Amino acid sequence: MAVTHNLESSVRRIGEELARLSGGQSPTLLERRWWSQAAINLAMHNLDFKTQLFRFIDMLPSVTDDQRVVTLAQEYFGSMAGQAFGLGWGLKALAATGVGARLSGHAIRAQVEQMARTFIAGASVAEAIPVLRRVWDEGKAWSVDLLGEATISDQEADRYRDRCLAALETLTEAVPSWAPAPLLEEDHLGRVPRVQLSLKISALSPHLDPIDPDGSFESVAGRLRPIVDAAMRASASVIFDMEQAETKDLLIEIFRRLFAESAYRTFPHAGLAVQAYHRTTAQDVEELLNWVRERGTPITIRLVKGAYWDSDTIRYRQRGWPVPLFEHKAETDANYEALVRKLFEASAVIRPAFGTHNLRTLAYIEATAEQLGLAPAAWEYQMIFGMAEPFQEAVLRRARRLRLYTPVGDLLPGMAYLVRRLLENTSNESFLRKEFVESESLATLLAAPTVPPPKDASPARGTIPTAFENEPPRDFSKADARSAMRNALTGVKDRLGKTRPPAAGGIALTGPVMPSYNPSRPAEIIGIVHTATAADVDSAVAIAADAWPAWRGLPAERRVEIIRRAAALMRARRETLAAWEVLECGKPWREADADVAEAIDFLEYYGGEWLRLSAPQRLGRAPGELNHRRAEPRGITAVIAPWNFPLAIPTGMVSAALVTGNPVLFKPSERSSVIGQLLVEMLIEAGVPGDVLFCLPGGPEVGRALGQHPDIVTVAFTGSKRVGLELLQQASTVTKGQRMVKRVIAEMGGKNAIIVDETADLDEAVTGVIASSTGYSGQKCSACSRAIVHAAVYDLFLARLQESIRSLRVGNPEDPGTQVGPVIDERAQATILNYIKIGSEEGRIVMEGRVRQPGWYVGPTVFADVAPTARIAQEEIFGPVLAVLKADSFEAALDIANATEYALTGGVYSRSPANLEMARDRFDVGNLYLNRPITGALVHRQPFGGHRFSGVGAKAGGEDYLMQFVVSRVVSEQTLRRGFAPVE
Amino acid sequence: MAVTHNLESSVRRIGEELARLSGGQSPTLLERRWWSQAAINLAMHNLDFKTQLFRFIDMLPSVTDDQRVVTLAQEYFGSMAGQAFGLGWGLKALAATGVGARLSGHAIRAQVEQMARTFIAGASVAEAIPVLRRVWDEGKAWSVDLLGEATISDQEADRYRDRCLAALETLTEAVPSWAPAPLLEEDHLGRVPRVQLSLKISALSPHLDPIDPDGSFESVAGRLRPIVDAAMRASASVIFDMEQAETKDLLIEIFRRLFAESAYRTFPHAGLAVQAYHRTTAQDVEELLNWVRERGTPITIRLVKGAYWDSDTIRYRQRGWPVPLFEHKAETDANYEALVRKLFEASAVIRPAFGTHNLRTLAYIEATAEQLGLAPAAWEYQMIFGMAEPFQEAVLRRARRLRLYTPVGDLLPGMAYLVRRLLENTSNESFLRKEFVESESLATLLAAPTVPPPKDASPARGTIPTAFENEPPRDFSKADARSAMRNALTGVKDRLGKTRPPAAGGIALTGPVMPSYNPSRPAEIIGIVHTATAADVDSAVAIAADAWPAWRGLPAERRVEIIRRAAALMRARRETLAAWEVLECGKPWREADADVAEAIDFLEYYGGEWLRLSAPQRLGRAPGELNHRRAEPRGITAVIAPWNFPLAIPTGMVSAALVTGNPVLFKPSERSSVIGQLLVEMLIEAGVPGDVLFCLPGGPEVGRALGQHPDIVTVAFTGSKRVGLELLQQASTVTKGQRMVKRVIAEMGGKNAIIVDETADLDEAVTGVIASSTGYSGQKCSACSRAIVHAAVYDLFLARLQESIRSLRVGNPEDPGTQVGPVIDERAQATILNYIKIGSEEGRIVMEGRVRQPGWYVGPTVFADVAPTARIAQEEIFGPVLAVLKADSFEAALDIANATEYALTGGVYSRSPANLEMARDRFDVGNLYLNRPITGALVHRQPFGGHRFSGVGAKAGGEDYLMQFVVSRVVSEQTLRRGFAPVE
Repeated sequence: MAVTHNLESSVRRIGEELARLSGGQSPTLLERRWWSQAAINLAMHNLDFKTQLFRFIDMLPSVTDDQRVVTLAQEYFGSMAGQAFGLGWGLKALAATGVGARLSGHAIRAQVEQMARTFIAGASVAEAIPVLRRVWDEGKAWSVDLLGEATISDQEADRYRDRCLAALETLTEAVPSWAPAPLLEEDHLGRVPRVQLSLKISALSPHLDPIDPDGSFESVAGRLRPIVDAAMRASASVIFDMEQAETKDLLIEIFRRLFAESAYRTFPHAGLAVQAYHRTTAQDVEELLNWVRERGTPITIRLVKGAYWDSDTIRYRQRGWPVPLFEHKAETDANYEALVRKLFEASAVIRPAFGTHNLRTLAYIEATAEQLGLAPAAWEYQMIFGMAEPFQEAVLRRARRLRLYTPVGDLLPGMAYLVRRLLENTSNESFLRKEFVESESLATLLAAPTVPPPKDASPARGTIPTAFENEPPRDFSKADARSAMRNALTGVKDRLGKTRPPAAGGIALTGPVMPSYNPSRPAEIIGIVHTATAADVDSAVAIAADAWPAWRGLPAERRVEIIRRAAALMRARRETLAAWEVLECGKPWREADADVAEAIDFLEYYGGEWLRLSAPQRLGRAPGELNHRRAEPRGITAVIAPWNFPLAIPTGMVSAALVTGNPVLFKPSERSSVIGQLLVEMLIEAGVPGDVLFCLPGGPEVGRALGQHPDIVTVAFTGSKRVGLELLQQASTVTKGQRMVKRVIAEMGGKNAIIVDETADLDEAVTGVIASSTGYSGQKCSACSRAIVHAAVYDLFLARLQESIRSLRVGNPEDPGTQVGPVIDERAQATILNYIKIGSEEGRIVMEGRVRQPGWYVGPTVFADVAPTARIAQEEIFGPVLAVLKADSFEAALDIANATEYALTGGVYSRSPANLEMARDRFDVGNLYLNRPITGALVHRQPFGGHRFSGVGAKAGGEDYLMQFVVSRVVSEQTLRRGFAPVE
Repeated sequence: MAVTHNLESSVRRIGEELARLSGGQSPTLLERRWWSQAAINLAMHNLDFKTQLFRFIDMLPSVTDDQRVVTLAQEYFGSMAGQAFGLGWGLKALAATGVGARLSGHAIRAQVEQMARTFIAGASVAEAIPVLRRVWDEGKAWSVDLLGEATISDQEADRYRDRCLAALETLTEAVPSWAPAPLLEEDHLGRVPRVQLSLKISALSPHLDPIDPDGSFESVAGRLRPIVDAAMRASASVIFDMEQAETKDLLIEIFRRLFAESAYRTFPHAGLAVQAYHRTTAQDVEELLNWVRERGTPITIRLVKGAYWDSDTIRYRQRGWPVPLFEHKAETDANYEALVRKLFEASAVIRPAFGTHNLRTLAYIEATAEQLGLAPAAWEYQMIFGMAEPFQEAVLRRARRLRLYTPVGDLLPGMAYLVRRLLENTSNESFLRKEFVESESLATLLAAPTVPPPKDASPARGTIPTAFENEPPRDFSKADARSAMRNALTGVKDRLGKTRPPAAGGIALTGPVMPSYNPSRPAEIIGIVHTATAADVDSAVAIAADAWPAWRGLPAERRVEIIRRAAALMRARRETLAAWEVLECGKPWREADADVAEAIDFLEYYGGEWLRLSAPQRLGRAPGELNHRRAEPRGITAVIAPWNFPLAIPTGMVSAALVTGNPVLFKPSERSSVIGQLLVEMLIEAGVPGDVLFCLPGGPEVGRALGQHPDIVTVAFTGSKRVGLELLQQASTVTKGQRMVKRVIAEMGGKNAIIVDETADLDEAVTGVIASSTGYSGQKCSACSRAIVHAAVYDLFLARLQESIRSLRVGNPEDPGTQVGPVIDERAQATILNYIKIGSEEGRIVMEGRVRQPGWYVGPTVFADVAPTARIAQEEIFGPVLAVLKADSFEAALDIANATEYALTGGVYSRSPANLEMARDRFDVGNLYLNRPITGALVHRQPFGGHRFSGVGAKAGGEDYLMQFVVSRVVSEQTLRRGFAPVE
């Protein structure tokens, strides 16, 4: 207590002194000459405006046409004109013109560029040298950060490596002539290099992925070693920046592996950042310190608060993962302070560097050092170039070592950086905002961080509480998730090749047995199943007809309970099921895992939905009558399923039919019959009676027998357009003995396009198109097979796409680093290769993914300059083949996108509000995705399905799906009897 | 003020005296020996129990099997056993047995019969004579009321007449020997007869219907005159009871017309009841007094509060009519008091009789008479036999003339009476309850009625407020409604025979012109329309395709506005449209009016629904993403409509397609093409552009052209199964140029059954079956064509059915008294007559409705003992032909009902909770009706449509109907950009 008390009074004393030392200054960003008070107020108090403003700034550099800048400004601010037009800075021009007729795109751009220059020292290192020299002359060290786009290809990774090497060379040449600065060049452990380079490790590889730590290390280390070599030669220091939460453990691991290599073990100028907002950073630091002690050479640890809170939190919550960051800023601040002490206590083996713009934190560091009796040389402060100048001044006046984190690079990638800084300065939590805008009292500003008590979990404003939450994907950045998957693969491999007893309600299946093979190793038999004949279908129907009344007669809750028990079984066997998918269907880990998660989602969602829908719904409120709508099962249902989502799709169709009270005859695909049978086994284990669910493996003849049977009243099908239309036609012919008009629910093909306009974020557009077109080798009905790109960015897009695709890892999906596995079988391979041949005649092939290894591989293939009417732009290929088409306008792109017979999925990458709105109105697809990949629809959040020739029926995973398996009955009771009715 | 004050103090004084005079007594019904305090408490405080108890009592007499009584008792009280088994009276037996095994049906029945005897003087007049004599000897007069079933045939009306005549005779013979009672036999106007008969006028005719006052009068008067003749001969008095609100004006009118006839003008012992709960009774009394003065002979006016409040209120509210009764009991009481004064003031020409069991009212009457100086002979009190004995005693002791309203009749019809009395005594508003159960203070009981201030109209408990209210049917008991309809018929008849210009977006229809005829007068041409050819369909499609984008591009609100404007036009032209239906389709008034109302409902409902459905619906609440579900029009839609609901059905289909943004090509039926064209004209007048809505009259070849056109993506059809299945098959064949899998919405036929079990209320079952099978001559897909009747009531049901059907009025629907009009045309007539021929071979014809008059008439026809597999029990006839089938159990009846290829509507008349529940579960129809007719589904309250071979698609007028005309699109936007997402 006494220590704390003393420390807190020191904090206050030193804080007050620092405040005095910073007096008379204010941060550039918050100065009136930079933007008006009105703009500050708007951005700080009107969140819509702030969003629009920052989004506009972010988008600006990618638009080269000045007139387009003007229309975009109107799109962004049109609806907020009244508020936006009062601004004193960049957007002042808008105010002057009113309707914007005389608005100059050039002027807007120039002013935003000037904003960026506040934070960016120059477009190139050469251009930055005078700025860095001035910084040095002012008594501050620096760390250069080379701004760049996201690295999405090996070529771009190489380029970043080369830029780092060049920067080291240029900087090393420049600094020797500068004046000596003992404060900056010597610390408690020795010499401090004048040159420091901050490294963005993710820029050194397109393959940085925590699912595959070894592959990631190899890829990064190959480019990192020459940089470290150069730094060692130049005696410069290199510091790893920290990035998104998913990569934290991986980056620390890479750091430790690399600097434990004998060549780098003694390099004393390596360092890395750690983020105080992480709940596990104290533990990470502990482990790092142990490692450093073992290594024997000091490192720099840069303690920062962390810059990815918003996006990490959003992405983790989107996936349903626990957020690994502290929820409250005060918790982060408190953790930061705890880490300060920990770093100080380890200063014999590390060089602590404190990144902060917070007066309390600065004072805390000073007070702690004072308490521990540390010399000022034992640590340094780091602040961001262009930010918090008053505090820079204060620590300089206190004769502390200060280093400015100084970005260098082009305006375009710089915008992302600019926006991050703007967000930081205008955030509600910003210390600078509190001090310099809201003028909070010094006492408040210097108070110890107090963590607010936890609030009741209450739903967001306007939210209708929903019980359903998607099953989270596995977080493969966790070592135990990876090892569970590896173990499951080993376990399943031990069980391959067996003949499985039929799961068909006790009827003997009389067809021949049928093996199922591993597409990655065609000789490997996954399992052998019994197949059904048309006669077996008859037998199954007869049994199901007898069993139906008991099944439909169960209370809804009972069937829901069974379905949910099946979900629990899948949850318990999650990795094993995923492993079967890897082996039987050639799915990469994440895809296999996602398929199992989606199967669980279907079970849980349809279960919950049935509880909702099976409750009689009262209609109207007239007295003396009770009208209730009820849902009753239609009858015996056939489910004919595909192999590409071998668990999820059949689980969805089968469970929808079952939970609503129908018996089900299920034909899994020949290509995934083992998984199909596993599904039926699990459902029966969960409690579905064996006489209402039949697994009937086999080929098209089984499907036909199901489609034609007069007693089967519903057919749920997912597969090709050809078969779907055949089933529809069959169903429309009434046959003898039929009791009901049949219903066919058919999810068929797609020829899905992503439109990329001139305002798109190309980092995201390229990766989104690749993920959508090569995920599971393009074998999804939702896959992207056309990219329609605005002429203004066509060449750039194509160049980046080509390099990025070239960098994909094609191979056996058992390897976690594999991004693209084989296609399902030889026939599929032949079909796709034939389309590649066709495409070669129709378009310009820019990437042909030949793969020379056993297994049914087809490497990702790209055709450019494809005509909208080309076969490869019209026909579903179901493989990793992408046609790239050029469009002169967004409208033209939409027309091209809509001009196929399909209407399944579609995507748009654009930052033009008007274009996004036009797409919402006119992009004629069942599932439209804006600024994200077009596959991976989630149950409930993105009910899935198309129209035109893509499908017939309600969207899977949506609230009207179950209604297809029922008839709706309205029961109307007259309750008035003898002049009286029950009081309601 | 002074008068009021004095009066109130008199009321208090006299009230206290009456209370004293009634001291030491309590009403039989509320006495402990009659039922236990627990039962009173239960019935008064547990509304569910009260409902079940009274319903059980009501049902009891119709069940003759003792064991069945026991199972029914268990059905009724099973779930409330704990509460029901504490009873001290009839149901005491249940408590003794627990599971009811030793429960005696006989004992239950005996005890309930004993209850009934409290209120009913005897099963026959002869049996009642000693009771009436005892009453007389106690110093009270009486008025005999002959209990009976509802009169649903001329035969039953004759029987009631004959019972009245016999009663008069028996009573007249009995009374002369009784002791003189001057108080009872003389009033201020002269002699008072010993015999008084209360008449239920509705029992004197099955045709009492305010829509047809003349016909009603003729029918009633024919049977009333002999009764009045007999009364005059015997010097007995006859009093008209008042009944439901709809018939009030009619009964008063009948009274005045009859007693103005020269033969009856001088009869001084006629009278009628007036109900104080009617808002217009003061006015009625005023008019009656004027009439009496003119007539010159006094009448009796019996002032009552009114006994149909619950049922009248419910029925008026169900229809959406303003309730003509006072809302609060206190308003009625106040009105009663005002009427007391009015009657007293007219006592020179009338004999006032006051029916009341309310101490305050009694005291008020006494005080008013005192104030006006009237002699006690100038009025009499009337109380109900077996009720309020303490007040009977009090007025006797005060030497006032008291008459007991005394029912005589069988237990079975008596139950309705018993239940009404039980309700009256246990109601919250009951004075007796307040005094004798709740022991309110005398001051409170004697206070002047105070009307509570109006409350805010707030929705009922648990109600979700809905904007939609059904368009009320016309109230044809109002003279102005009748004359509006007559005028409209005259108006339309002036416009018959014209050739109408096409309503087809400016394209010239190139088919021949086609006349439409009046089915009641086959030579009369209603109108002549141009017909379309297949080439015209092509032209219309081409224009519609061009016009579509603008139509779909309108904001949803705009299209809704147009649709609602069309509703307003229909409202403004309501009678005219109905008149067209009477003339073109042969619809009776009410049916025609209902069809127009339903058309308005469709427009309003689909308009409101589209506002709901067109708003993008957010899915899920994950951060950083926005998922919205949107609905977009599918495309060009064909509507192929039938003639039987010539406005409502096409309005529903056309408006659903239009409001959701689709162009529509509409083919009305050849048999109702004028009304079809009127619909299109109105929609265009309301603002639907002429190029998105085309009226294409013609025959099946037009329908085929529509069904086959590759650019028509949705076909909405209502008609026969044959054509529906043909359209479905056509649609499943993909043709060249087709862009989309077609959707067919087909409402097809029905072979609908009503099950009548042994617990049914036969009054309602017979009328319900008749209404359902003969309404619009059975030409509704919802019509009943099979009655499946439990063996125990089969003969009785059949006998009553036969007589009731025989009494139907078949004729020209222009006559408001017509119940059954012609069928639509010669072909329909031939088809139906052929089925009658078939039926004559398959079943026993019990009623053949031959009609000898021009026009396509087929009289209602009934076959009994029909086998479930007979053609007339399996095939849709679409005419007034009913097959009656016998079933041995309810399960067997359900099996028969379900054993056709249709599943459209069905009905059950039953008072067995278990059977009703079994029907809810197992009666496999789209619309099931319990204890009501099976036609007349209302938009929103009873969404309409079937399955099996009765239909494909969502129910018309239901919340998912519109979704058939749209495709559903899910738009998923990634809102996270550069690490930030808009705050939600």
